[in-house]
Amino acid sequence: MSFDLEHYITENRRLLENYLETVLPGDRGPAPRLVEAMRYSLFGGGKRIRPLLAFAAADAVRENQGPVPSKNRERPEAIVAGALEMIHTYSLIHDDLPCMDDDDLRRGRPTCHKAYNEATAVLAGDGLLTLAFEVLLQGSSEFGVPMIRAAGLIAEAAGISGMVGGQMLDLLGSDGNPTRESVESIHRNKTGALLRASIVAGGIVGGASREEEGMLKSFGGCIGLAFQIVDDLLDIEQSTENLGKSAGKDQDQKKATYPAVFGVEESRKMASEMTLEAEAAIAGFGPSADALRGLADLLLRRDH
Amino acid sequence: MSFDLEHYITENRRLLENYLETVLPGDRGPAPRLVEAMRYSLFGGGKRIRPLLAFAAADAVRENQGPVPSKNRERPEAIVAGALEMIHTYSLIHDDLPCMDDDDLRRGRPTCHKAYNEATAVLAGDGLLTLAFEVLLQGSSEFGVPMIRAAGLIAEAAGISGMVGGQMLDLLGSDGNPTRESVESIHRNKTGALLRASIVAGGIVGGASREEEGMLKSFGGCIGLAFQIVDDLLDIEQSTENLGKSAGKDQDQKKATYPAVFGVEESRKMASEMTLEAEAAIAGFGPSADALRGLADLLLRRDH
Repeated sequence: MSFDLEHYITENRRLLENYLETVLPGDRGPAPRLVEAMRYSLFGGGKRIRPLLAFAAADAVRENQGPVPSKNRERPEAIVAGALEMIHTYSLIHDDLPCMDDDDLRRGRPTCHKAYNEATAVLAGDGLLTLAFEVLLQGSSEFGVPMIRAAGLIAEAAGISGMVGGQMLDLLGSDGNPTRESVESIHRNKTGALLRASIVAGGIVGGASREEEGMLKSFGGCIGLAFQIVDDLLDIEQSTENLGKSAGKDQDQKKATYPAVFGVEESRKMASEMTLEAEAAIAGFGPSADALRGLADLLLRRDH
Repeated sequence: MSFDLEHYITENRRLLENYLETVLPGDRGPAPRLVEAMRYSLFGGGKRIRPLLAFAAADAVRENQGPVPSKNRERPEAIVAGALEMIHTYSLIHDDLPCMDDDDLRRGRPTCHKAYNEATAVLAGDGLLTLAFEVLLQGSSEFGVPMIRAAGLIAEAAGISGMVGGQMLDLLGSDGNPTRESVESIHRNKTGALLRASIVAGGIVGGASREEEGMLKSFGGCIGLAFQIVDDLLDIEQSTENLGKSAGKDQDQKKATYPAVFGVEESRKMASEMTLEAEAAIAGFGPSADALRGLADLLLRRDH
């Protein structure tokens, strides 16, 4: 029986949303309006790519370990997946701010600072980032070393040596002349680092051996790059309506993108090659990595 | 020989700054300008109150454990102290933003968004918050359970159930009519939670027993409240020059403060009583808690 990716995605998205509901119920903390803004963005119809990759990586390494109690399925990976989605969501909220990319539309709805206000959006982002580490630390108490390592990787990937550093480069680069080096550095940091960490962290809490971890790392590096190239292409080729966020902004803001440096055709080719390379990196896994393979393919072929 | 608080403060500030230098050297990450902005705020002459309280709490619980290797003095507490100062600094950077409290002056210098720009200030804050958890997670790998617990407490105190939640209440409360309940809730969350966590977390990585932890928690609760009452009084009574930040802003912005609700005299009395209560809470400690006692007294008597 062939692997049913659609079913896999639906089930795991539901698992993620249930987990996020438990850690961020509407009545948490002393400021309901803040939690409302956080939930507005967190439950705003994201594709949940990072959580799905984390789940799929955990499943990939389970092949040689036999079936895993459903309790485990629900806990350590859900914590990692939930933290990743909170970190991703916080980064979108802050990146959309007027002083940053100044975006009004996200996932087909007004951005957080438009729906609430700027101060609330800054705090909602801060709250989500902090909550991500709160759950990772609770998880570290409960699950020990693998969770601590996974959380450490996520922190590194989210910070100045990863996502935050990449966003800074992206902002600084807007007025410049993008080169191969600059576009690669921005993408590797801004989106690549956290995507790769999603995969490696998922694998680690799933019980990956060092060898398996190495394969997931290679896979994650390639997927991270392919993902961002496709993102750049979609910004050019798709409508705002279809993307659910403002299309064509990269060109307007003279962003350093793959199509700007390599052209559309070459960029498309690079994305395909990177995806093949990713799949080759996990050739050592059996059918347990089918979700990972399916997601790699889907990320390449997506139209939003 | 009586305890030399001034020397204690100087030495421990130096220890903290050395530690911060190692985790945030000027050449970290791909975006030097971002690290420059983070360092601008982090090394901008803060009083280092939270780190000092963490160090003092760790020292307090060492009494019954005999001398501790200097290696330990430098490592787990420095991590906790460094993370606390990074979290405190990030909160100042974000709170000073135009969309929040809109402050131009901090620690006698232009605020981060004035010295750089708003986008850089948002990212510098995000970078500091993330780096705080990065070092706490590295520390968790190295020092295990006590560090994980300390880090978990800090995360909780910094987030929506503490500092971030309190800042939201503070913003929402600006146009209202402050009551005893609202001012207490804002202060307990906005500044009280992280101050208390500083003390408890320092004690935990110092090796506190559950009983000692309880005493430190009571001490921290009282100190947190006393600290904020004094802060409110200073805003009224001191000059901008002396404070190094804009004075008189609370009244201008109709903030919920202790003097606004209870009057100046009653507020001063409350701060003194809270400090006495704090000192009573740690009466069970011997001379090892002298730094903690000295700091409590200093925080009450400070003029900036």
